[in-house]
Amino acid sequence: MGSVDIPSKQSAAVREGTGESAKAPVKQIDVRMPGAGEILIKVNWTGLCASDKSLIHDEWKDFGVAMQDATKGIAGHEGAGVVVAVGEGAESRWKVGDRAGVKWIASTCGECEFCLTGTDEVHCTAQKNSGFSAEGTFQEYLVADARYSSKIPDGVKDEEAGPIMCGGVTAYVACKRSSVKPGQWIVLPGAGGGLGHFAVQYARAMGMRVIAIDGGDAKRDLCKKLGAEVFIDYTATSDIAAEVMKVTGAGAHGVLVTAATKQAYDMAPGLLRPNGTVVVVGLPKDPSVVAGAPPIMMALRRLNFVGSVVGSLKDVEEALDFTARGLVHPILSKGKLTELDDFMEKMSKGQLPGRAVLQVAA
Amino acid sequence: MGSVDIPSKQSAAVREGTGESAKAPVKQIDVRMPGAGEILIKVNWTGLCASDKSLIHDEWKDFGVAMQDATKGIAGHEGAGVVVAVGEGAESRWKVGDRAGVKWIASTCGECEFCLTGTDEVHCTAQKNSGFSAEGTFQEYLVADARYSSKIPDGVKDEEAGPIMCGGVTAYVACKRSSVKPGQWIVLPGAGGGLGHFAVQYARAMGMRVIAIDGGDAKRDLCKKLGAEVFIDYTATSDIAAEVMKVTGAGAHGVLVTAATKQAYDMAPGLLRPNGTVVVVGLPKDPSVVAGAPPIMMALRRLNFVGSVVGSLKDVEEALDFTARGLVHPILSKGKLTELDDFMEKMSKGQLPGRAVLQVAA
Amino acid sequence: MGSVDIPSKQSAAVREGTGESAKAPVKQIDVRMPGAGEILIKVNWTGLCASDKSLIHDEWKDFGVAMQDATKGIAGHEGAGVVVAVGEGAESRWKVGDRAGVKWIASTCGECEFCLTGTDEVHCTAQKNSGFSAEGTFQEYLVADARYSSKIPDGVKDEEAGPIMCGGVTAYVACKRSSVKPGQWIVLPGAGGGLGHFAVQYARAMGMRVIAIDGGDAKRDLCKKLGAEVFIDYTATSDIAAEVMKVTGAGAHGVLVTAATKQAYDMAPGLLRPNGTVVVVGLPKDPSVVAGAPPIMMALRRLNFVGSVVGSLKDVEEALDFTARGLVHPILSKGKLTELDDFMEKMSKGQLPGRAVLQVAA
Amino acid sequence: MGSVDIPSKQSAAVREGTGESAKAPVKQIDVRMPGAGEILIKVNWTGLCASDKSLIHDEWKDFGVAMQDATKGIAGHEGAGVVVAVGEGAESRWKVGDRAGVKWIASTCGECEFCLTGTDEVHCTAQKNSGFSAEGTFQEYLVADARYSSKIPDGVKDEEAGPIMCGGVTAYVACKRSSVKPGQWIVLPGAGGGLGHFAVQYARAMGMRVIAIDGGDAKRDLCKKLGAEVFIDYTATSDIAAEVMKVTGAGAHGVLVTAATKQAYDMAPGLLRPNGTVVVVGLPKDPSVVAGAPPIMMALRRLNFVGSVVGSLKDVEEALDFTARGLVHPILSKGKLTELDDFMEKMSKGQLPGRAVLQVAA
Repeated sequence: MGSVDIPSKQSAAVREGTGESAKAPVKQIDVRMPGAGEILIKVNWTGLCASDKSLIHDEWKDFGVAMQDATKGIAGHEGAGVVVAVGEGAESRWKVGDRAGVKWIASTCGECEFCLTGTDEVHCTAQKNSGFSAEGTFQEYLVADARYSSKIPDGVKDEEAGPIMCGGVTAYVACKRSSVKPGQWIVLPGAGGGLGHFAVQYARAMGMRVIAIDGGDAKRDLCKKLGAEVFIDYTATSDIAAEVMKVTGAGAHGVLVTAATKQAYDMAPGLLRPNGTVVVVGLPKDPSVVAGAPPIMMALRRLNFVGSVVGSLKDVEEALDFTARGLVHPILSKGKLTELDDFMEKMSKGQLPGRAVLQVAA
Repeated sequence: MGSVDIPSKQSAAVREGTGESAKAPVKQIDVRMPGAGEILIKVNWTGLCASDKSLIHDEWKDFGVAMQDATKGIAGHEGAGVVVAVGEGAESRWKVGDRAGVKWIASTCGECEFCLTGTDEVHCTAQKNSGFSAEGTFQEYLVADARYSSKIPDGVKDEEAGPIMCGGVTAYVACKRSSVKPGQWIVLPGAGGGLGHFAVQYARAMGMRVIAIDGGDAKRDLCKKLGAEVFIDYTATSDIAAEVMKVTGAGAHGVLVTAATKQAYDMAPGLLRPNGTVVVVGLPKDPSVVAGAPPIMMALRRLNFVGSVVGSLKDVEEALDFTARGLVHPILSKGKLTELDDFMEKMSKGQLPGRAVLQVAA
Repeated sequence: MGSVDIPSKQSAAVREGTGESAKAPVKQIDVRMPGAGEILIKVNWTGLCASDKSLIHDEWKDFGVAMQDATKGIAGHEGAGVVVAVGEGAESRWKVGDRAGVKWIASTCGECEFCLTGTDEVHCTAQKNSGFSAEGTFQEYLVADARYSSKIPDGVKDEEAGPIMCGGVTAYVACKRSSVKPGQWIVLPGAGGGLGHFAVQYARAMGMRVIAIDGGDAKRDLCKKLGAEVFIDYTATSDIAAEVMKVTGAGAHGVLVTAATKQAYDMAPGLLRPNGTVVVVGLPKDPSVVAGAPPIMMALRRLNFVGSVVGSLKDVEEALDFTARGLVHPILSKGKLTELDDFMEKMSKGQLPGRAVLQVAA
Repeated sequence: MGSVDIPSKQSAAVREGTGESAKAPVKQIDVRMPGAGEILIKVNWTGLCASDKSLIHDEWKDFGVAMQDATKGIAGHEGAGVVVAVGEGAESRWKVGDRAGVKWIASTCGECEFCLTGTDEVHCTAQKNSGFSAEGTFQEYLVADARYSSKIPDGVKDEEAGPIMCGGVTAYVACKRSSVKPGQWIVLPGAGGGLGHFAVQYARAMGMRVIAIDGGDAKRDLCKKLGAEVFIDYTATSDIAAEVMKVTGAGAHGVLVTAATKQAYDMAPGLLRPNGTVVVVGLPKDPSVVAGAPPIMMALRRLNFVGSVVGSLKDVEEALDFTARGLVHPILSKGKLTELDDFMEKMSKGQLPGRAVLQVAA
């Protein structure tokens, strides 16, 4: 087993308390060494995703969704750093010094129907999830599955890699699922948001023509700068569908809904041309929202609705590659792991533009 | 122009009156000769579709949908017969004596974006529809568009051809849209119905494994005879999803909804495995029915909903070919054109098993 | 019929003599008015393609391929101009003043199996070809098929439109046929040539990463400027496959052969990763050249070879749209119709960089 | 670790000598117990593939291809039996008593680009192959990779499972690669052979229409019985292409070449309609044979050549499922492991109809 100098203790943000008042102060805990098929990653940066906050604050308790004991109270699922120790059997894939990333999917079984079919491993029922059913990235030294950890290519900074492996790949895979071809139109409701601002960039890099929908001049400037050809300000537009038709003729080829709102889903099918596709990504809290349309509209116009969620190990590699080539970059709000509670509060208040990332190891 | 002996007068069922009490008694009207790009078809048999009844009885008035003047009061869109005269410029495709069929789409422009893209001509906004915006098949001698009329192959009887060109092709194209591969499972709610009994046969001929859902032993026997591997009697099953899971493991690869009910659409996504597809075909009268699912279900399970409606000229050719090869046959309730009003009454009462067809020319 | 002031006589380059010594001097001939389903186009610019030269000079005589009488001695198949008269039945698609383009495929039957299936109309056996089996674009006033002539969008100059509708669409469709996805590698042997310089631009606009192969620094500069990420100078590289592997790792995802040479075809499969695709476009004169590979290489590496030729009416629309958006531009060598013989001589000597275009109407 | 009564010694056919005169007599050797990630399979039946004979007899020496030391002289790669011991970490997938199969691909790395992309694991460069770079199935108790061994479903006999997992899956995947749709024509040169007789059955079960090509009345009867709609006897047909055109009109949609001959590859493209596909499977010994066509034919007719080889773990599951459902059965020549040398001699003389299988464990 290769290794570098590894301390026996490390800093980690460990959950204390329960419910809304739960905190995650930084403590000193033991460093564990990797077992067979595992690697030890020194986490340089971690993203802070809204779902980390939800898990730490028990927001999904009513759905029976809560951090499991296996996490040891450590959340986080957008980690990027460097391999400092390699467990038995993992040498074929990793060596000390390699750059490595940790994602929402921490590991999969590799054997089920879904693991064996292309990018379907995201449906593996035996999967472990970082910060939910396995220890998360809010610690300096994380033991991770060797097979499912991601290689981070040159040209992608650690602080960018985390958000790319979560929001970035989600946007990228959703663009692929849209079936929109180079030169065709895709509409992005929520284009200026955490997922949306990735989608604008991936769609452009894939040759699509982008109509961004969001509110206000700051969002307009952002979307235009990221590559949107047309911006529709929903706060200043009475008939969005009419605007889309004016631009596209018969309607858009695809609508990728990153906005987690009923309005976005209700509006989406009406923006499409026949045979067009709505990609379902944004997850509204309101359980009565339905992504769909009346059968007569679906059938006569032969519309498509397709769901999309994160991506496979291969998808993540591809998503990172777009950043390595300089085509896609996240907007970042940066801090330190010790500021985690503070950042979660700001997040609640909508005070963190783009994706939040925290420096972990010194 | 080739021709055979053509009478100057013919029998046609012409609408009289309006609303529910409208009738379509047989009268003697003039025979028109085909112009440039047209053919004259002696209609031997015509299907009677539920939508013909709806149009004759003004059932869609509230939606602003009604038979147009161009129909001259003649409905019907599932006609099969023989060419008796060929207009100028139509000789390259037709000669007197050829067997020809008339469909819901009577003609398309051939020039728009949709006509120029594969099977998208069904979205041509300049299309004419038989018995709705053009004269229908409830007459002995019909002038039809030469380009868009269908060749009827040997091995398909006239009385079968009409239903195949409407319900048959609808079921066939929906099976194609399902993306279910040979050896995979498709669920057919409403399998014993007018569309469903076609879908069972096409799905089987395409190598799919069929789970038929319908009610009662007669439907069970029918579905099994037509090729369903599993039958679920919804009148005797408390948890249909559990039954489907028992048979398929992780769920079905596709659900093709021909039943025009809210229950069918509500149930459909829950029968699917991850990545599965609901094909939207049945059109419920209740305008509040939505084909879709909550975004969280759509996204996490990456489900697909796709609309499907009739088919292209090429699709019809393919659908007829399955019958010519003996693989797909409609169940027929036969009558004569003079019995049209009587048949519409029986149809209202659900007394016509399978597809209704009427003999037209003597 | 709409119309503008149309002269009774026009200039046209009409073939005289036969074989290599044939000439095409400009003469005055009658202007014909459009019939049913036709339009009259005032041709502002026409491309001069190598195949026009081959037809005028009878170079394909031994294959039994020669200009047919229907051309009246007028070659040319890359015309762009303006509609000056509209025949009966063509008003739905055209009005006087519209910009229109004429391509190699002058018309198709619209009725055969191939016309009815997506972009397969290029296989219509009843098609007419401009300057081969129908009058060509080397005349000021050309009667053209209304259905199959192309709309030229704003943002595309007449002198660009001709080459786009021939070489451009050929390159564009070949890129589509390659199945190379955004972010994947395509290799372009002959990248600096007439077809190749289009392929570089379309591949880039579709999100592919381009490895251009050609000879010399001028070609290097051109390819780099047009968007190639890597240039391999075959005149200075001993092992091209090794270079491609160094850049791509396991090999390229696609190779699009526009070079019409045995070397290019022999080299192509060795540049691919498993599952990669060779697109066959360039047509070597040597009849012994085969596009293919030993079965053991094809099978074990699961390689694909796919042929591609011009494109459909819809493909042409899409290809023009990329130029309208400023993403693809031809390199042009410009002249006048009166210089046709001179240009053909220069073409023989390889003295015309890019695509040759001639101004036709004053 | 679960286990049943396992002897310490077993029978195995171990290679002795080299070259053409090498033998593989049955000896007593030690039984090894499974390590981590492994299972011990009691092999009931094994297929005898032509490549086993080639490896035992050193026929591929000149290509540098020979049985490696890791085989311990034990060839064979079509094994079917029952799990008798389960190594550490393999309990999630296997338990004692499960039916298990061993294939040409014994294991893959599960981590490379190809393992992570759909069915591309067949290109894993770290794969082990049974009887070539790992111990083969010509022994009673085989230690196998837990992840890559196949589950054998009820309804598939052990003696059938071996051939299905090799020749069967090869034919099945080749049918999928053909892109031929239900109702379309596929031509099968060599239809009566070891691969071909599988291809006829899979093609039929997938809804394709089959034209079988082979020689003699016995082959005709076999092909017809297995589901071929048309049989062409090449020994009695002067113009095979003309026959195919007569049946199909414009040509077949696909040609799947299982015959390992130059004639089959030379003939294949000429049997296709535009856009048709040749699937390359048969591997001629003559290294000068090329699967391909002149570029002008490839391009103008937009033909496709695609290579295919064995299949993925998922493909094998699917292939077995067709047999479990009674749709595909191999023709078998049965023997015992002790008859191995005798069977190889008969195989050389072409005296073994269908696929050869040997009973291994008592």
